[in-house]
Amino acid sequence: MAKYVFGVDIGGTTVKIGLISTDGTMIEKWEIPTRKENNGANILSDVAASIKGKLAERNIPDSEVAGVGVGVPGPVSADGLVLRAVNLGWTDLNVSKEFEKLTGFKTAAGNDANVAALGEMWKGGGMGYNSIVMVTLGTGVGGGIIIDGKILTGALGAGGEIGHIHVRDGEEKACGCGNHGCFEQYCSATGVSNLAKKHFENYNGTTVLTKEDLSAKAVFDGVKVGDALSKEIAEEFGECLGKGLSVIATIINPEAIVIGGGVSKAGQVIIDYTMPSFKENVFSDCGKLKMLLATLGNDAGMYGAARLVL
Amino acid sequence: MAKYVFGVDIGGTTVKIGLISTDGTMIEKWEIPTRKENNGANILSDVAASIKGKLAERNIPDSEVAGVGVGVPGPVSADGLVLRAVNLGWTDLNVSKEFEKLTGFKTAAGNDANVAALGEMWKGGGMGYNSIVMVTLGTGVGGGIIIDGKILTGALGAGGEIGHIHVRDGEEKACGCGNHGCFEQYCSATGVSNLAKKHFENYNGTTVLTKEDLSAKAVFDGVKVGDALSKEIAEEFGECLGKGLSVIATIINPEAIVIGGGVSKAGQVIIDYTMPSFKENVFSDCGKLKMLLATLGNDAGMYGAARLVL
Repeated sequence: MAKYVFGVDIGGTTVKIGLISTDGTMIEKWEIPTRKENNGANILSDVAASIKGKLAERNIPDSEVAGVGVGVPGPVSADGLVLRAVNLGWTDLNVSKEFEKLTGFKTAAGNDANVAALGEMWKGGGMGYNSIVMVTLGTGVGGGIIIDGKILTGALGAGGEIGHIHVRDGEEKACGCGNHGCFEQYCSATGVSNLAKKHFENYNGTTVLTKEDLSAKAVFDGVKVGDALSKEIAEEFGECLGKGLSVIATIINPEAIVIGGGVSKAGQVIIDYTMPSFKENVFSDCGKLKMLLATLGNDAGMYGAARLVL
Repeated sequence: MAKYVFGVDIGGTTVKIGLISTDGTMIEKWEIPTRKENNGANILSDVAASIKGKLAERNIPDSEVAGVGVGVPGPVSADGLVLRAVNLGWTDLNVSKEFEKLTGFKTAAGNDANVAALGEMWKGGGMGYNSIVMVTLGTGVGGGIIIDGKILTGALGAGGEIGHIHVRDGEEKACGCGNHGCFEQYCSATGVSNLAKKHFENYNGTTVLTKEDLSAKAVFDGVKVGDALSKEIAEEFGECLGKGLSVIATIINPEAIVIGGGVSKAGQVIIDYTMPSFKENVFSDCGKLKMLLATLGNDAGMYGAARLVL
């Protein structure tokens, strides 16, 4: 019987690979560089070689491997087709089929943010729930929606792209996507930093914040020591995050929302500043959900990818 | 083999019942009053009696009935439990189980808006698609989300409650739900009428609109004859509808959006005024979908309820 599964999380710089037991215990994890030359032609064969090497090193026969799950930074269709993954150089690549050919292992592929959501539901902050929305507040805002244990993939593999929903009218600055007033413009690490700059410039009081470090971390550290300016910034962040999440919760009615990504490392304070606006904007019963923090950090993708194939 | 299925759409005033062939042809449809006294205690038994009567009238044996689907105006859990349906007086009623007891027929129940979406996908405007969002622009704004052929029910049966997502900042008037800036405040029949009142009061030019009739129908009739004021109103309506639908499409990435309800009877003009704002606000590939009009009108609920049980 299969005892092991591999969870692979392909990023723009490194590929994270986890050897995981089929009941969800991380046995070993390691990274290899993402070779992006030749439109990423070597990436999957590098991963295949690394996995084969690990099996040889540990004397694990192929028959004990349930399969390999792969998270990809881009839209992935339900059958594993990646139309394009800009950061890797891939176009029209069926990751599942290609990797099965390379290794002989059953393979499943999914979008990295969706797969991370699945990981958090399996072994992280969303454990015990069956329908969750995960929002990842990193450099951008990513998201994954799991309904009845299954990823909402979307018609073109773009389900759960919550970073670019409109949350604020009258925004003058454009988002990276070209639109105005996107979720990501206020709630990503970059977004918080931009809010911080705006408030800092217009502030005349004393503050622990400095012009040199207006990062999301500095802001929430400031909140924790009672800094008034930091609190102002956190309030505007929370207003936007709460509003965006209220819209998602009203549409999806999940059991829980799991907040992850670098910004969420600030901890419970993120939820504290988000709930007032969430409660104000959410519709009726859709507000009756658990607002939770992610716990797996950068490992969520590996867990989720592994889960995908089980 | 079963040849027939019943689709039941319970409304606050009447219950619509359809005798439908299992391949989706409406054979006969009729209505009975919704008896709301005693907290709606007679509603299901009235429906059961009506169905039994119809079978007797047509000499159809029970063995030829695949089952009965029931649409309910309120949240319905995946197993048929209605926690409350305010318009009917129901609380904590398992409609599926109760109706199976009354008739012996396999029964499935769902929220009326969700069921209508399923109907439009089966035999209406969304035919041929597998993942759609239906938005119903009636007295309020309702919605239903179908993913891979299955209704997104939501953790508490409140999935697809899109009428109350926040679409506009700075709204001073409260929505019926108590929040401010809800989709429903601008895009329902009442919403269009409210927009019309606001524009009419501030307009000094000539117009075909009159203070006595500022209904959604009057507005779109005005658009069709080139009335400038009507166009202004339609533009604001379209801006809100496009924005709301863009948010939903960005989150869900459906194959198609189907627009139904009374307001949609104006036809293609609704889509024409919605697309600019939709395109402006939607994210990337999520905008590549079909924007369609519903075609089943008030029959959608019966078709969808029938489909639910098949």
